[in-house]
Amino acid sequence: MKFFSDNAASVHPKVWDALKQADSPDSAYDGDAISQRLDAAFSDLFGTDCAALWIATGTAANCLALAALCPPHGGVVCHREAHIEVDEGGGPGFYTHGAKLMLADGEGAKITPAGIAALIDPIRDDVHQVQPHAISITQATEYGRVYSVDEVAALSTFARQRGLGLHMDGARFANAVAHLGCMPGAITAAAGVTALSFGCVKNGGMNAEALVFFDPALADLTRYRRKRAGHLQSKGRFAAAQLLAMIEDDLWLDNAGAANCAAQEIAASCGDRLLHPVEANEIFVALAPAEAAALRALGFDFYDWPAPAGRPGAARLVTSWNSDPAHVGALAKAIAAL
Amino acid sequence: MKFFSDNAASVHPKVWDALKQADSPDSAYDGDAISQRLDAAFSDLFGTDCAALWIATGTAANCLALAALCPPHGGVVCHREAHIEVDEGGGPGFYTHGAKLMLADGEGAKITPAGIAALIDPIRDDVHQVQPHAISITQATEYGRVYSVDEVAALSTFARQRGLGLHMDGARFANAVAHLGCMPGAITAAAGVTALSFGCVKNGGMNAEALVFFDPALADLTRYRRKRAGHLQSKGRFAAAQLLAMIEDDLWLDNAGAANCAAQEIAASCGDRLLHPVEANEIFVALAPAEAAALRALGFDFYDWPAPAGRPGAARLVTSWNSDPAHVGALAKAIAAL
Amino acid sequence: MKFFSDNAASVHPKVWDALKQADSPDSAYDGDAISQRLDAAFSDLFGTDCAALWIATGTAANCLALAALCPPHGGVVCHREAHIEVDEGGGPGFYTHGAKLMLADGEGAKITPAGIAALIDPIRDDVHQVQPHAISITQATEYGRVYSVDEVAALSTFARQRGLGLHMDGARFANAVAHLGCMPGAITAAAGVTALSFGCVKNGGMNAEALVFFDPALADLTRYRRKRAGHLQSKGRFAAAQLLAMIEDDLWLDNAGAANCAAQEIAASCGDRLLHPVEANEIFVALAPAEAAALRALGFDFYDWPAPAGRPGAARLVTSWNSDPAHVGALAKAIAAL
Amino acid sequence: MKFFSDNAASVHPKVWDALKQADSPDSAYDGDAISQRLDAAFSDLFGTDCAALWIATGTAANCLALAALCPPHGGVVCHREAHIEVDEGGGPGFYTHGAKLMLADGEGAKITPAGIAALIDPIRDDVHQVQPHAISITQATEYGRVYSVDEVAALSTFARQRGLGLHMDGARFANAVAHLGCMPGAITAAAGVTALSFGCVKNGGMNAEALVFFDPALADLTRYRRKRAGHLQSKGRFAAAQLLAMIEDDLWLDNAGAANCAAQEIAASCGDRLLHPVEANEIFVALAPAEAAALRALGFDFYDWPAPAGRPGAARLVTSWNSDPAHVGALAKAIAAL
Repeated sequence: MKFFSDNAASVHPKVWDALKQADSPDSAYDGDAISQRLDAAFSDLFGTDCAALWIATGTAANCLALAALCPPHGGVVCHREAHIEVDEGGGPGFYTHGAKLMLADGEGAKITPAGIAALIDPIRDDVHQVQPHAISITQATEYGRVYSVDEVAALSTFARQRGLGLHMDGARFANAVAHLGCMPGAITAAAGVTALSFGCVKNGGMNAEALVFFDPALADLTRYRRKRAGHLQSKGRFAAAQLLAMIEDDLWLDNAGAANCAAQEIAASCGDRLLHPVEANEIFVALAPAEAAALRALGFDFYDWPAPAGRPGAARLVTSWNSDPAHVGALAKAIAAL
Repeated sequence: MKFFSDNAASVHPKVWDALKQADSPDSAYDGDAISQRLDAAFSDLFGTDCAALWIATGTAANCLALAALCPPHGGVVCHREAHIEVDEGGGPGFYTHGAKLMLADGEGAKITPAGIAALIDPIRDDVHQVQPHAISITQATEYGRVYSVDEVAALSTFARQRGLGLHMDGARFANAVAHLGCMPGAITAAAGVTALSFGCVKNGGMNAEALVFFDPALADLTRYRRKRAGHLQSKGRFAAAQLLAMIEDDLWLDNAGAANCAAQEIAASCGDRLLHPVEANEIFVALAPAEAAALRALGFDFYDWPAPAGRPGAARLVTSWNSDPAHVGALAKAIAAL
Repeated sequence: MKFFSDNAASVHPKVWDALKQADSPDSAYDGDAISQRLDAAFSDLFGTDCAALWIATGTAANCLALAALCPPHGGVVCHREAHIEVDEGGGPGFYTHGAKLMLADGEGAKITPAGIAALIDPIRDDVHQVQPHAISITQATEYGRVYSVDEVAALSTFARQRGLGLHMDGARFANAVAHLGCMPGAITAAAGVTALSFGCVKNGGMNAEALVFFDPALADLTRYRRKRAGHLQSKGRFAAAQLLAMIEDDLWLDNAGAANCAAQEIAASCGDRLLHPVEANEIFVALAPAEAAALRALGFDFYDWPAPAGRPGAARLVTSWNSDPAHVGALAKAIAAL
Repeated sequence: MKFFSDNAASVHPKVWDALKQADSPDSAYDGDAISQRLDAAFSDLFGTDCAALWIATGTAANCLALAALCPPHGGVVCHREAHIEVDEGGGPGFYTHGAKLMLADGEGAKITPAGIAALIDPIRDDVHQVQPHAISITQATEYGRVYSVDEVAALSTFARQRGLGLHMDGARFANAVAHLGCMPGAITAAAGVTALSFGCVKNGGMNAEALVFFDPALADLTRYRRKRAGHLQSKGRFAAAQLLAMIEDDLWLDNAGAANCAAQEIAASCGDRLLHPVEANEIFVALAPAEAAALRALGFDFYDWPAPAGRPGAARLVTSWNSDPAHVGALAKAIAAL
């Protein structure tokens, strides 16, 4: 009974179907008929013209977005615990040619205009100090928190005032939208987001994410950079097919909704153990080492997490689109019984 | 009847089977059981210890190899028409942080020790000139030519004498080995190759190539760089599965052999039109514009190619693992009838 | 009466003499007789074989050193307020091709093995997280503090245990050595430092620093990188001459000693205002805005500094090799009279 | 009697005077009064608004210019024997983050619109091939040839039509202008040049060149990049002083004129030996090994040069602003007597 990560979950049957249907030869790279449908399909989804590029991983999507928004000598503001800072092996430094991540604080891995201002206002406007050029937020965050529409809009207003681009790392964008119940455009294009990494792999895909630009010039630039980074697959139709399958008939929201529900069921059993409100599909719980061992003895697998102040230990539990209801129920019960 | 490229061909049924079998959740990235089998499987294949990393594209495989063999301030010798120089969108410059490709000449896109010496001997051994650090050859070449075992050995002897690493771009390595009928290790590890991009996509795979290092230290380094480049897929088991399917039971050689056979059948009909000996699955033919139009009118699709001196025009014809024998026969007949 | 920075002070007469004597044509770049003397002169100075490269700025010296010690995918530990992090315009990111600065805390901009361990021990040893490859310390620090011989030795022991290189930013190395009264080798080579940026400009030079490597392989590599960065001047003899003039007859220590003395005289008048012990040529004082204005009204120029907690304001006062004793005395008196 | 290079010549007395006068402390970096005069002084010189940044070397000036004109994924067209390609240690790859130099042919190291078109027209307009973004020409060229005003204008017209920036490497710009007898603006701003590396070191300076932008946005960007590259000297006033001394009272043209004259005197004695018309201060002569030895036996020093087809050997002779007339006369006589 694995609650390690949504990262490694199975591929959804509809994605398999789409993959199989994509198997007849077509133009290479992104010249095939399926890839050519992406822009229109995502423009429909977001209710505004946008360009969508398939890309194999979230790290590549994030890093290409940052490179489009920030010159090599600039900086990108993100949360101190953002995935781009902590878990992408220095990818942002590679793709941006050495730009700097500027680390803001904020509860639940969320950042705010005030927090960003506190970070960048002391930066002298001279060539000795790296100047900020963009902001990157994660939706849902690394702690499973979700920015509200108003929070994103406030960040984008701030970004515009300061002349900064705004990137959203949406590895779990579907979970955030499912939680908010809003239109996907409301939390992105309409809220002023410039570039979105739209997650698909964690949500039932195999190996395709979408990098969505609400500014076509950035997309054009990025097509060159995607190729240059060795991310232009020759049978790109298989990547495109996954994305189309995911957004057709709201599969992405159904899958994310299922994962969110499972997380809620577990969260409901955690009481005071909860370290963060559960808004997506991640549950962070205080757990003493003995308690963690007890759960593992029952067959539950999950990652330990650094213990916050005043707690004996912690764990991260992640549900996914196909978390087995029996496993979820069992885990909820087991936690309640600790 | 498409003879554009093997790049866009269908995925082999055995690869599909392997993909489906890989669908049960496992550890993420390359920690899963299938990825963990790669090193041993490729060591068996090459008859020597090696490390094999899956990677989505040949461009990424090539560029990671070059970055492992050449520092940012160095140079890599390759043929003037090498894929890394001509068709990878500047990827080598990105991955090597600005190292230089040094362009040697040679018939059929093959380079020789003499040709390389002519290029690098005049380079002054001082800091003003970029010094060579590696050689990269393509096997089979961009013109469908195959280096013999002796030719590779001569290059690797030369490389060793000059302190240069040796990379082999094997996007069509299978076609070369099928042509030579040699052991794969004889043309790589035993012949002194340091790093091999082992092609799978053109040969019936979906989106996985193998980057094989015969020096484990370079593989260790490259694991960090693969992640940093956003090429570490979270469901890496699907990439590994394609590669294992390909090398099990010699599927890779069967597929390449089929493509090579089809190419021979067409070549046999080309007579004086042949611009290069046909040794793999590419046929370069002299073709006047009217002749090309005539073939297209019959339903054959292919790329025009720059006309060599003294010829009215040219075309590239590429066969693949599943080229339809009827189409192949028809094309051969149509060319003969021109 | 300027106490802004030693950065902009005059050039010492002995440096002028050396520059003039270097004016006869000689080989270009670093092939001239004066440049050729650098290695031996610095080896004498440090009591061990080393290689010394002239370079126009401290930023370039620091960044070339970091690039020699850390691969693009790695990290360098430094203090949160280190010059390389705060004031070099992202130069480390440029020269290292995107490596990461990892920010440790510590009083007075000094870092300790414990502080570094607290920072790097939680880093998982996997490809998702940037791994540390080097440590960079500033001697004297950005707050005018000096690492003792034992402190440097402890850091280098720690560095060796963890497989990390050790760089010393010695923009004010002379001030540190003058303060410690030790042999320059005792605080560098003998203490395990791998690379030293040896400051000259702030100490009476015009536009030359020395980058000293105690590992010749790193120096050889860096000669290529210096050229590649456009830092190999064609009339390099003028850079070399400044450095030789500086270290001959201990001019560097005399100059630094004079600056340190002046700083001590001012410090002695500051009492409780002192924010850091004064060990080199920088004095950080608590100063209310009205007090700062009063000093400026008397003709003293200096930089305001962010006010530390519980203080109404602060200022940085910097002395230099030729601070006018009358100005120094006047400033000391004026502060005492506040 | 050295005819190696103008690279290593003495510093002009007026430059020494300017350096000495710059020695009183002032603001650091480029905030001092002398640096602040550069933009106006160069705007006067070129008869149009421009921004001039001091920089220690021609390599850095060239590379910063290329980085301003070409994105990392783009290419810069230059002559196959251009200094940026042959003699800058890969600096362009470093500064541009891996952009590609595209090598055009042309007599005397000059390139033409037709030559560039032949190079770039075959480039497919897709992401697989690096697209050109700029042209770089050397004035005077590496073979001492000078582009006429019309030739530069034709190149800039071509550049504008193709959407390419135009950079001029003017390491010997003074020699070119002295030869042409034109206004400096006529061959740069008015002719459509975007960025100029204005040489000073070879022409009597110590260690300062000017990087002149006729587009202020590129200058603003480059100020950040200059700092990031460690090229912002803290006592920048000494760099600025050299440049102002050089352009005041036409010292730059007087010095270049003297060097050109000396070259003409030698050229007049060379007859059929001349490999290129002598238009600046470099003379390329056919010289058999025995003849070269004979000249050296007489005390003349110079570089051998690769022998062109049909010649037994060659040499490069370079005059400088202070070539001794007696040496020049003696060399001319000695060559005539061979």
